[in-house]
Amino acid sequence: MNLAYEQADAPETDLLPKASAANIERILRNLNQFNDTPGEGTTRVLFTETEVAGRGYIKQEMQELGLSIREDAAGNIFGTYEGTEPALAPIWTGSHIDTVLHGGMFDGMSGVVAGLEAIRLLEEADLRPRRSIAVVVYTSEEPTRFGLGCLGSRALAGKLSAEDAKALKDGEGKSLYDVLESLHFPVEHFDELPVNRGDVKAAVELHIDQTGELERAGKPVGIVQTICAPSVYALKVTGRQSHAGGTSMERRRDALMASAEMALAAEALTKASLGPGDYATATIGRMELVPGSVNVIPGEVEFSLDVRDSSYAHKKELTQKILSKFQEIAARRQVGLSDKEYNDDHPMPCDAAIQGKLVEAAEELGIPYMKTISGAFHDSMLVGEFAPVGMIFVPSRDGISHSPQEWTDFGDIAAGTDVLARTLYALADD
Amino acid sequence: MNLAYEQADAPETDLLPKASAANIERILRNLNQFNDTPGEGTTRVLFTETEVAGRGYIKQEMQELGLSIREDAAGNIFGTYEGTEPALAPIWTGSHIDTVLHGGMFDGMSGVVAGLEAIRLLEEADLRPRRSIAVVVYTSEEPTRFGLGCLGSRALAGKLSAEDAKALKDGEGKSLYDVLESLHFPVEHFDELPVNRGDVKAAVELHIDQTGELERAGKPVGIVQTICAPSVYALKVTGRQSHAGGTSMERRRDALMASAEMALAAEALTKASLGPGDYATATIGRMELVPGSVNVIPGEVEFSLDVRDSSYAHKKELTQKILSKFQEIAARRQVGLSDKEYNDDHPMPCDAAIQGKLVEAAEELGIPYMKTISGAFHDSMLVGEFAPVGMIFVPSRDGISHSPQEWTDFGDIAAGTDVLARTLYALADD
Repeated sequence: MNLAYEQADAPETDLLPKASAANIERILRNLNQFNDTPGEGTTRVLFTETEVAGRGYIKQEMQELGLSIREDAAGNIFGTYEGTEPALAPIWTGSHIDTVLHGGMFDGMSGVVAGLEAIRLLEEADLRPRRSIAVVVYTSEEPTRFGLGCLGSRALAGKLSAEDAKALKDGEGKSLYDVLESLHFPVEHFDELPVNRGDVKAAVELHIDQTGELERAGKPVGIVQTICAPSVYALKVTGRQSHAGGTSMERRRDALMASAEMALAAEALTKASLGPGDYATATIGRMELVPGSVNVIPGEVEFSLDVRDSSYAHKKELTQKILSKFQEIAARRQVGLSDKEYNDDHPMPCDAAIQGKLVEAAEELGIPYMKTISGAFHDSMLVGEFAPVGMIFVPSRDGISHSPQEWTDFGDIAAGTDVLARTLYALADD
Repeated sequence: MNLAYEQADAPETDLLPKASAANIERILRNLNQFNDTPGEGTTRVLFTETEVAGRGYIKQEMQELGLSIREDAAGNIFGTYEGTEPALAPIWTGSHIDTVLHGGMFDGMSGVVAGLEAIRLLEEADLRPRRSIAVVVYTSEEPTRFGLGCLGSRALAGKLSAEDAKALKDGEGKSLYDVLESLHFPVEHFDELPVNRGDVKAAVELHIDQTGELERAGKPVGIVQTICAPSVYALKVTGRQSHAGGTSMERRRDALMASAEMALAAEALTKASLGPGDYATATIGRMELVPGSVNVIPGEVEFSLDVRDSSYAHKKELTQKILSKFQEIAARRQVGLSDKEYNDDHPMPCDAAIQGKLVEAAEELGIPYMKTISGAFHDSMLVGEFAPVGMIFVPSRDGISHSPQEWTDFGDIAAGTDVLARTLYALADD
């Protein structure tokens, strides 16, 4: 599927040339070579040798565009296209290049590549706006390695301190702080990362749609109104480990059966909570059984609960309903239950003025667009803490992401990039 | 709790002295030193260094009793107390010394130690029956390492060939056959293992009760009528891996939610199938999610299903109901489902004549006993394929086994051993 507008039908605009789907494809395919699971989706986990090499490749593309490159204490990469008045607050665009395990080649990467392509268009048109424009690669939007997402943008938002980075450990017990230090990032400046409101004029991120909504509506571009935010919990159910054959059904305190009932309750309560215009999801992505033997009733089950919502109030109400239902199930099944909250982020509304500029650009270009909300969170959710943000979505096939089946047509990314480039220029020349 | 009869109240029998709870405790505690997870239950997995050392300790105890020791191609250990007419078909007693992960110190081991103590009583009384009595340590009753239980007794029953042993692989891909060979067991004779009916006169196994039934009834001894048999399946649910936030509740094909519904259906159908006198269980002990990330809807879930039943017909009907319900759930939730049967064993009735001798012994000794069935399978289930079998149960606290909390009072094992010793002598002198 290619939902991109027919280029021939688009009204002529003198401002900028059209984005090149071929160039976007080239960079995305090159970047996808940095992959620890070729043939089984894309796996590029934060600060693995592979991810570091992928960063190197993006910096090389930035260099070829003549951008000045800076890396901060959290490993965020900034490639800056200097404006004519570089003292003014800059415009940011960008996304991330790390992936989940066995993910796809578009989630995150499309936004970085669209930023690079937008700068190329400005250069080709010899347009130099007043404000500088930085293409940003945010460190680890995915929680794959450290269990917490948006590490780079979180630090910029002042929500991840050096102390937090020391406490945050990966599966092998290494702290984020130590890993950053071993890679020679200037960690001693970690607590200088937070950006003051006003220091960044605006930030616009292009990302793949992860709902299938754009594809179903036949629109190449979505203009995001709100970014949903997650609450993440770790649950631990403690039953009684015992013999599979010797323990009658009546006498069991089966941690797995209790967890199964909790999973279905989370699903049912979330579905029941949705009125017209609401968006909420509940996901159990991890579940581990102890001892995990065929012939032993699980004595302990740990599982994750991820709740997303476009409204903070609705999310609070829903998670409380779910957790209190879990307690009810635990009591009835005579198992113990403990929960630990990992994060409880606030949904981020996109800036109305930026939305207006995105609409203007799409209309000028004759690109069909729709207003939408983002079920997934993105770095923009954190960047929105210190700057006005906007987001452009491009369609993903069947709405699949975080999967080897993830696919977005390069022509659709090009259409989104055209909207992005015009909007960046408008914001930067403002 | 010590349910053992008051020794003072027991009628005098001239035949044999009473079993020593202290000696039983000594051997069980010594054996429990061979443990890969001290402080976290007992882990002694087949043919690990620890298990091999545990075997060595038991052989040393056999030697101190003057038993002649033989090990067969499957690693089964036979310690024989020779009868006055050693050409007659012998009597066997024994159980296993391997454990599940983080299990207890009684399951299996009690039967081996009771056998050794019974022989000690015969020697102390200077009783030499006509038939030889062998204390047998069967290889790997637990399926911990190879995913299949009763390896030693299964081979003796002609249900595990050399070819099967070559195909049976552990988690690291090593075959049972190769492991046996590397430990210098005479594997070239593997296909000579099967025992002909008539070659063993009778076999009696003492084991801990794993239901709590004996404890609740206040009886130190249970006389088993039937050993329930398991059917084990591996199920694989294939949904659609996708983004936790970006995929609305309506659009999911969540492999975990489907699996949770299947787990609860297996539980409900099993409970509903039970009429008076029926015994059946369904257990899901393993469940693995792919990719297993907090923010990804599981695309694939593999889980085990273990169904036990005292009736083969009831088990067949129940497993078919469960599997067809699974298909219905899979179809409704639009996920794929495949199942693989690992085993489908037949429940084994205990021999009526041996049951009669066990009752006789208990009554002579004034030990309160009850008739019971075994929800768990045991080596006797396979030994029953070629010899008349009987089983003695001793109480386990709260019916807990396969757990660090597993506990049986040594006095109760001694009471069971008294019944065992008298029965072995009666059978061997027959």
